[in-house]
Amino acid sequence: MRDPRYDILFESVQIGPVRTRNRFYQVPHCNGMGHVHPSAMASMRGIKAQGGWGVVCTEECEISPHSEFSPYIEARLWDERDIPALARMCEAVHQHGSLAGVELAFNGYSAPNRYSREVPWAPSDTPVRGYDPVQARAMSLADIRQLRQMHRAAALRARSAGFDIVYVYAGHDLGLPFHFLTPRNNRRTDEYGGVLENRVRLLRELIEDTRDAVGDRCAVAVRLAVDEQIAAGLSHEGEGAEIFTMLADLPDLWDINVADWSNDSMTSRFASEGYQETFLSGLKALTSKPLVGVGRFTSPDTMVSLVRRGVLDLIGAARPSIADPFLPKKIEEGRMDEIRECIGCNVCVSGDHTSTPLRCTQNPTMGEEWRRGWHPESVSPARSSSRALVVGAGPAGLECARVLGARGMEVALVESSRTLGGRVALESKLPGLSSWSRVIDYRLDALSRMDRVQIYRQSPLEAQDVLDFAAAHVFIATGARWRRDGLGRALRQALPGLESLPILTPDDVMGGALAPSPVLLFDDDHYYMGSVLAERLVAQGVEVVFVTPAADVAAWTHNTLEQHRIQRRLLELDVTIIASHSLMTVTSDGVIASCVYTGRPRVIAVASLLLVTSREPEQALFRALDRPDEELREAGIQTLLPIGDCLAPGTIAAAVYGGHRQAREFDAPAGSLFMRREITCLEVM
Amino acid sequence: MRDPRYDILFESVQIGPVRTRNRFYQVPHCNGMGHVHPSAMASMRGIKAQGGWGVVCTEECEISPHSEFSPYIEARLWDERDIPALARMCEAVHQHGSLAGVELAFNGYSAPNRYSREVPWAPSDTPVRGYDPVQARAMSLADIRQLRQMHRAAALRARSAGFDIVYVYAGHDLGLPFHFLTPRNNRRTDEYGGVLENRVRLLRELIEDTRDAVGDRCAVAVRLAVDEQIAAGLSHEGEGAEIFTMLADLPDLWDINVADWSNDSMTSRFASEGYQETFLSGLKALTSKPLVGVGRFTSPDTMVSLVRRGVLDLIGAARPSIADPFLPKKIEEGRMDEIRECIGCNVCVSGDHTSTPLRCTQNPTMGEEWRRGWHPESVSPARSSSRALVVGAGPAGLECARVLGARGMEVALVESSRTLGGRVALESKLPGLSSWSRVIDYRLDALSRMDRVQIYRQSPLEAQDVLDFAAAHVFIATGARWRRDGLGRALRQALPGLESLPILTPDDVMGGALAPSPVLLFDDDHYYMGSVLAERLVAQGVEVVFVTPAADVAAWTHNTLEQHRIQRRLLELDVTIIASHSLMTVTSDGVIASCVYTGRPRVIAVASLLLVTSREPEQALFRALDRPDEELREAGIQTLLPIGDCLAPGTIAAAVYGGHRQAREFDAPAGSLFMRREITCLEVM
Repeated sequence: MRDPRYDILFESVQIGPVRTRNRFYQVPHCNGMGHVHPSAMASMRGIKAQGGWGVVCTEECEISPHSEFSPYIEARLWDERDIPALARMCEAVHQHGSLAGVELAFNGYSAPNRYSREVPWAPSDTPVRGYDPVQARAMSLADIRQLRQMHRAAALRARSAGFDIVYVYAGHDLGLPFHFLTPRNNRRTDEYGGVLENRVRLLRELIEDTRDAVGDRCAVAVRLAVDEQIAAGLSHEGEGAEIFTMLADLPDLWDINVADWSNDSMTSRFASEGYQETFLSGLKALTSKPLVGVGRFTSPDTMVSLVRRGVLDLIGAARPSIADPFLPKKIEEGRMDEIRECIGCNVCVSGDHTSTPLRCTQNPTMGEEWRRGWHPESVSPARSSSRALVVGAGPAGLECARVLGARGMEVALVESSRTLGGRVALESKLPGLSSWSRVIDYRLDALSRMDRVQIYRQSPLEAQDVLDFAAAHVFIATGARWRRDGLGRALRQALPGLESLPILTPDDVMGGALAPSPVLLFDDDHYYMGSVLAERLVAQGVEVVFVTPAADVAAWTHNTLEQHRIQRRLLELDVTIIASHSLMTVTSDGVIASCVYTGRPRVIAVASLLLVTSREPEQALFRALDRPDEELREAGIQTLLPIGDCLAPGTIAAAVYGGHRQAREFDAPAGSLFMRREITCLEVM
Repeated sequence: MRDPRYDILFESVQIGPVRTRNRFYQVPHCNGMGHVHPSAMASMRGIKAQGGWGVVCTEECEISPHSEFSPYIEARLWDERDIPALARMCEAVHQHGSLAGVELAFNGYSAPNRYSREVPWAPSDTPVRGYDPVQARAMSLADIRQLRQMHRAAALRARSAGFDIVYVYAGHDLGLPFHFLTPRNNRRTDEYGGVLENRVRLLRELIEDTRDAVGDRCAVAVRLAVDEQIAAGLSHEGEGAEIFTMLADLPDLWDINVADWSNDSMTSRFASEGYQETFLSGLKALTSKPLVGVGRFTSPDTMVSLVRRGVLDLIGAARPSIADPFLPKKIEEGRMDEIRECIGCNVCVSGDHTSTPLRCTQNPTMGEEWRRGWHPESVSPARSSSRALVVGAGPAGLECARVLGARGMEVALVESSRTLGGRVALESKLPGLSSWSRVIDYRLDALSRMDRVQIYRQSPLEAQDVLDFAAAHVFIATGARWRRDGLGRALRQALPGLESLPILTPDDVMGGALAPSPVLLFDDDHYYMGSVLAERLVAQGVEVVFVTPAADVAAWTHNTLEQHRIQRRLLELDVTIIASHSLMTVTSDGVIASCVYTGRPRVIAVASLLLVTSREPEQALFRALDRPDEELREAGIQTLLPIGDCLAPGTIAAAVYGGHRQAREFDAPAGSLFMRREITCLEVM
């Protein structure tokens, strides 16, 4: 039962004409589903309401083709045709007694209107954000009137869809009302430009319009970024606070954060829980209206403290609600240990960036709620009571064992080393990645409550051991190791001359090996590993020359909002960065790199070479076992499945997902697995 | 009537069990519509059939969630649910007597399966193409059997949808069968790896399977890249030709091109019409089956020559069929002058890269066929016979006047300078861009046939002139000029110190100004202009230091498949490239740049500064005319509209589109404009 300390989190909060059932508030967050996958989106939001989030919001919701975000997939309320899809979400949220919020968004020069081909609008003439060869045009007063009408009409549609909270969006330096606030975007000389009162005018009008249109039944929320963390931007000690003060009691609810998105949604590598408090504190005293804010909160004590200290009225969360849709319910039921805490890796954000449904390292059911019918807190019982053996206690093995256990099976989880967690145990010791150990913590905690799951450490298994064990279902999760020959994206054959210099892999460095200095770190992986190893090496006093075939460092981390911070950090650590270069050959004097454009060689004198390229699945055990079905059955084995990195090396998210999926699906009758998907209606031509 | 020289192009060709009506063949090409916008795709393809293309194919068509291309939008035939959308396309094509082809595609490690989350397949373990943190796994023999079954099943679905030609796709280094062909991708030691006969096995089996499944009614085509233009790749003189020879008579049709896509679809900046002939010639002699190939063909004489010389049987086209869906019909009807020739800019390709419907510089109706009901060859008559004045004969003005003329209006097109074409006339004189003048050629030719359109050169107009002219409908297409103050994406305020050095803009250079050497070219535009000016300057003997805030040169040209070639060319011209840097200030000793990551300053000693940042619309005339409606009406003006760059500077494609759109829509009754769009079906939850 609930700890009375946390009672305050379950108090109701009045927001204009509506009332929450508690203080847990899922702020708007993108998800890669939006208007393209509306049933999937509705299911995902509904499960959060079921899990106890008192308010559940949409992602950004386009109000007009004059500002559409293609190919990014957000919600859409252009006209009446879009109401049914969002009504579906409202129903799913209301079913569990929660409120549904919608973030109406018109993003001006942040959206090049690739689909609609409309000219984007802005306070002043300006190129659009990003590199599209498109310029937004300065809005006329007639345009501003039209925008207000469109916003009002969208608010009415939102009310028709069933939303309880309607946003005016001025966050992240994305929304047009925000662009009007900032002098660098707003060079107007009319009543919408110049002094702050003028720059605030549009936001004020939109709030008033929205209240006028739907305030009878819906709360009007404003999402405002009060700080941009750039010299020429809004500051929470300057105009950010002034704007807030000027509008203090105008909306029914303030949803406060910082801009841009990479500052709002910082990864755990660069910020810890509660990192936005500096920007939030003091604001509540300026308004009589409730305030919601975020900070990747997963600790109920932190949440209570924020409310008690008068920082926030509502505990906002995006990522923690993705990692654990049942976080509020677990607090309510006194099951704090069972919270699946967000690790702050931002794999979820990559869904938006790649216009595909979001996934989550901690919560492998995220994005699968509707299409595969997966629920984050329940699985169906196994079809038989036969025993399972899981070999390897990395992320795939741990999750597989956990789900098999939850399905009521007797499970042996066998790990060759002393340490549980596999690659996660190693990687979470690298600079900035300590939160990633939550992947292990959650699963070990869950396993500790399962009597039928036995964990065996320091138990390396040979094929014969597995056969002798005679479990009906065998899952091989033996992981992968980094390649020592350079093979990867750029090099399709082993790098010549490897014998000429000391060669290291990430496994060596994580295992404690010291790289002779200076080291050439060749990053053909493009995710986090190269850069965190560079940080580690610098901390060890090793001089690092970072060579990558990509144009920038850790190129894939654009998708996790980290690229800028990573490259800045390496530059500040005086790492030498040589971009757009591959490797040709290794000599005892150093490495010969070559320009990816011209092929021109370049000699780099180093004492060692660290290859961060690709990984080789550790399949020795699987291969030794892989034999015709009848032979396996003779040994009592009905199922033999490689999972996680042993099947194909990938992210930790993919390993957890792979383990989860096989544990759910290995015993499904043939033909019973079906992935629902959403298909475009064929209108009459 | 048709010139008998071209009769050969209208001969029928037998392809297995089906027969074309002529030799015009729209090869498969992506379009950003695919399964997400199926009615739009069907309309677009149907119009090509109407325009005389004897064969009209889909884009790549996914056959299974085991290889899906999200977020790139292609066709989809995963199961029965996908048949109706593609049946719609087949109907649209058959309606005009043409054949419909489908390019079944399974792309292995080229597709990270972001949506389906399936582990990608490859001949051997390998990271996926691009930077996704995903590795494909080596296929087992069981996987290969499963692939063959999936391909066969998809072929049967294709036949059900109504397709006449079914492809096995081994092109572009994208399709899995191609990956099996190449030793750098295929390190297998079983019967599918090693000697060429083994590497060809999968492709051979898929051809046989497809013929076996649907060969009774459908032709089986193979799209094969016979050359990769890389040292370690297939060559048309080596294994490329060997593979072709081994399979010579197995398919019913060969669709031959080169890999990768950037080599297949080269822009006019880097290749001229017919650039693939080297790789095609000689192949026809090796097979008894018809051969189709491409080369951005727009000249009927070239086409005839290719057939007569035995290079090709069918004239393949993607881009020329986008620029002019009626190209075959125009040849057939002896209207060669009216062909709207592809300029080879690859703006169309950017649709696929940005997952939005393709557009075309030359053909502004592309992508608008279904949703706005636009036809490339017809417009509705104007609602009144009143006069129109178009001020400015750049791309927007020319197209606007052309469409107004086609709508039967009396039009005056007034240009201040001697030269017609505006920015296109200037830009097409820059290195590599001469084909772009086709934008002018097509429109001047069309205008020359319109008696009711008068063109006035060297006629600068003041506001009073316009009022005195008393045209009912006035379109202001006065263009834009490059900014001289540095404002753009990176700089939001004027660059300090501009008085310290000679400052140039692209307009200056195009106007013949010489830049004192060395010049710092600051490219914050990120499309082609910075790099073509760098080429021009180098040719003039000027030393160029190219500074860009992006990580690479001409970053947006990734979307036109040009980025690699552009950066290579600049490097080979010994242009100094300083990426990831913005500008801080200008001094008489040079420019102080700053790292976009750290802000660290860097002094660059130069003698002049060329600012390629953003453009300012030339709105002086429009502003002088812009007044209350009643005042305009007094002067007889019912409509006053800025169009093209004068409204908002953008691409030439956007200018043509803007002029076209306003000419179609300016007199539409209020509320009559409606954009159809495709919406996801809501299934029962």
